[in-house]
Amino acid sequence: MTATVNKSTRNGVDTDTLFATLNAVKAAPEAARFQFRARNDWISGTHSRGTIQDFFGVGEERSHERTFHFDADHPAVLVGRDNGPTPVEFVLHALASCLTAGLANIAAARGIRLTDVHSTVAGDIDLNGILGLDPAVRNGYQNITVRFTVRGDAPADKLRELVEQSRARSAVFDILTNQVPVTIEITTD
Amino acid sequence: MTATVNKSTRNGVDTDTLFATLNAVKAAPEAARFQFRARNDWISGTHSRGTIQDFFGVGEERSHERTFHFDADHPAVLVGRDNGPTPVEFVLHALASCLTAGLANIAAARGIRLTDVHSTVAGDIDLNGILGLDPAVRNGYQNITVRFTVRGDAPADKLRELVEQSRARSAVFDILTNQVPVTIEITTD
Repeated sequence: MTATVNKSTRNGVDTDTLFATLNAVKAAPEAARFQFRARNDWISGTHSRGTIQDFFGVGEERSHERTFHFDADHPAVLVGRDNGPTPVEFVLHALASCLTAGLANIAAARGIRLTDVHSTVAGDIDLNGILGLDPAVRNGYQNITVRFTVRGDAPADKLRELVEQSRARSAVFDILTNQVPVTIEITTD
Repeated sequence: MTATVNKSTRNGVDTDTLFATLNAVKAAPEAARFQFRARNDWISGTHSRGTIQDFFGVGEERSHERTFHFDADHPAVLVGRDNGPTPVEFVLHALASCLTAGLANIAAARGIRLTDVHSTVAGDIDLNGILGLDPAVRNGYQNITVRFTVRGDAPADKLRELVEQSRARSAVFDILTNQVPVTIEITTD
């Protein structure tokens, strides 16, 4: 799925490899079937540690170049010890980083050089839901707002179109705005 | 929202504070309105860096005890440089850590001592979606499977009920299995 050809790097994206990858997947659609994974180990209270390392893609088991660990916890105001962000904050990070990666790829493909891309994401949540105090309140975010600043060598409307196209092709945006079937299996022995 | 009363810690959860918090929110439901936030700065290619620090809750601006930074990237096989997990892997970490935190709180409230909780989460995704090669394929996960192992001082059915109740009260499970409205605003100057 990677190919080393004449390098044509824009925005840090090797566009030759990007297009070669697209062509490789066109020729062999099965290569695009991936499975991503995370492991989680409970530590104490609301504190747990996640591990991200291996995944499946392009027909074989693969591994990141190193193992990533991320602690999650609740802050003291939510009866935790603040050893890491809350799980719902990781969701916001996932959304922003997905839209940003897509934007850089799309800009590179369209020949637009980016000079600055940053964003803030805010999610409103009413904890009466997860606390079980009001059955009319949902557990998760009621809404999420992403504010992007995009600067580069293109007119404003072209820069805006990059964000729009990234949204249209974002895995995490799709996950959050549409439904994903989630199955939970439990072992107790 | 926190209260220091006679300590009664189980599974690392201060259950007196947990119940005091519940009672405080019952008396003042507005305290439960939170806003969580993340910032993201593009670095190069698919590599970006997220920052998580401040949030709003219990009527005022708050801050984590320290600032958290998380890099995200694509692996080489997806034309990135593997400087961090992919955005969609952070989604899996968020789900596992949310279910685990809830499980520990619920076990503590029910007087069940946990000895081991770990989980693996796997998400299947067909990248023909985000690559724009097949309009019939969605961008995000087609399905997610969570496999929990829970051990503690309770019969198997009681341990299984902890996971079920955590699922029923999980913010991230709700976010993934129901829809969240996401608004994107863009500034280009």
